[in-house]
Amino acid sequence: MGRGDRGLTARKICCVVEYVGTGYAGFQRQPGKVTVQATLEKAISAVTQEDVRVVGSGRTDAGAHAVHQVVAFSTSSALPAETLHRAINAHLPADVAVMSARDVADDFHPRFDATSRTYRYLIWNRETRSPFWRERAAHVSRPLDERAMNAAAQALIGTHDFASFVPTALEGSHERRMDSARCWRDGDLVIVELQGSGFMRQMVRSIVGTLLRVGLGKSSPAAVGEILASRNHELAGTTAPACGLYLYDVHYAAEGSATPQEME
Amino acid sequence: MGRGDRGLTARKICCVVEYVGTGYAGFQRQPGKVTVQATLEKAISAVTQEDVRVVGSGRTDAGAHAVHQVVAFSTSSALPAETLHRAINAHLPADVAVMSARDVADDFHPRFDATSRTYRYLIWNRETRSPFWRERAAHVSRPLDERAMNAAAQALIGTHDFASFVPTALEGSHERRMDSARCWRDGDLVIVELQGSGFMRQMVRSIVGTLLRVGLGKSSPAAVGEILASRNHELAGTTAPACGLYLYDVHYAAEGSATPQEME
Repeated sequence: MGRGDRGLTARKICCVVEYVGTGYAGFQRQPGKVTVQATLEKAISAVTQEDVRVVGSGRTDAGAHAVHQVVAFSTSSALPAETLHRAINAHLPADVAVMSARDVADDFHPRFDATSRTYRYLIWNRETRSPFWRERAAHVSRPLDERAMNAAAQALIGTHDFASFVPTALEGSHERRMDSARCWRDGDLVIVELQGSGFMRQMVRSIVGTLLRVGLGKSSPAAVGEILASRNHELAGTTAPACGLYLYDVHYAAEGSATPQEME
Repeated sequence: MGRGDRGLTARKICCVVEYVGTGYAGFQRQPGKVTVQATLEKAISAVTQEDVRVVGSGRTDAGAHAVHQVVAFSTSSALPAETLHRAINAHLPADVAVMSARDVADDFHPRFDATSRTYRYLIWNRETRSPFWRERAAHVSRPLDERAMNAAAQALIGTHDFASFVPTALEGSHERRMDSARCWRDGDLVIVELQGSGFMRQMVRSIVGTLLRVGLGKSSPAAVGEILASRNHELAGTTAPACGLYLYDVHYAAEGSATPQEME
């Protein structure tokens, strides 16, 4: 079936989306709040003249950012993906942008099909706050030992019960697979990067808060593994602020048509 | 004379200042406008309880930024420089910060003593605009050939009459010394860096506009040297927008107490 016949048939479009989360109550639609999901749906619906629903690869917290969020939506629009891409951007506010768009298989699901996600957490680590990193990184004024933080983070790798790093009230299985955990310094920025099968609400921020205690010398690198094993959230460090958190990448299986990595 | 006696004697403080210029009508004080200089003077005066006047290393345009502006002021305050540093920051808005402060010789002058300045110009070079680089880089959607831009920029090095790259009405000598001129790519960002004895109003932005014509293939790298030699501003490219411009560093002679580089 040619593209010209598409007007009568629903197809699925996958987009990579970037947003500065400062002005949003998180990704997920909530009544009465300005969210990224609702903002995307409004812009896409204006272009396609349909009531479009967007599915994301996962939620992000209020004030947290994304440089590579993956979303998908079904539409009967006949417009080529590249035309949709530009038209949607024309309807989006300046702090959200669709970076790419493509047709994908009808059964593609941004969340269920993702094999892993990468998050980065940015810390501005200098005595004086930075105007440029305001609301885009957490500010820690005392010097951090990023090597100790990196050493501590290694205990997180593997499949574990991460109950220590999620709010106590969060129900369901807390078992997740952590593929990599790194921390390094780039000038006055300290960056924590976590890649894994999935991250529960506040999990990255709770891990970062725990690593910060190590970086400040308040606990030893070995403490992180002990806290993980304890499954006791009270032993974790203070949850780090959302403004330093970035959804950095979403990974899919290399095979199949639904591989957003191929889009760029 | 000990620091404790300072209360009766004027001394000079040198500060490195960082600012996001988006909300400002440039560095220099202007009646009825919000400027970086006036903002600094208000904050410092509130701390020292004097009517402080600030001298900067040079002006920046409305909407242009600084990661390393150098300013100095005289005060009879007895507070240690580090205390002044913190107190001034507490009085500054979030988009301006003093990054360091120190006592310098009474005859230090941020502008006259500077031996050279470094500016960077940032270009977001991807088809889609970036929410993160909004108002912090110029957006050029068509691919730039940064190697051609770098080759073209080499003609600027040396001591030249830069009349081609300043508004026609600008009076006085247009002779300046350009120490280095580079252009390179970092992912989707293209960066132009110029270091020289001094830069006239809109000079960096006019040079960047001219280099962009080369980067887009609209003129050859050799054209930049020809435009420089012509001393004709009408031949230069369209002046690039201020939001991509950063005062990146100010250089002083290595000797003497008034060396802001030592502060960090």
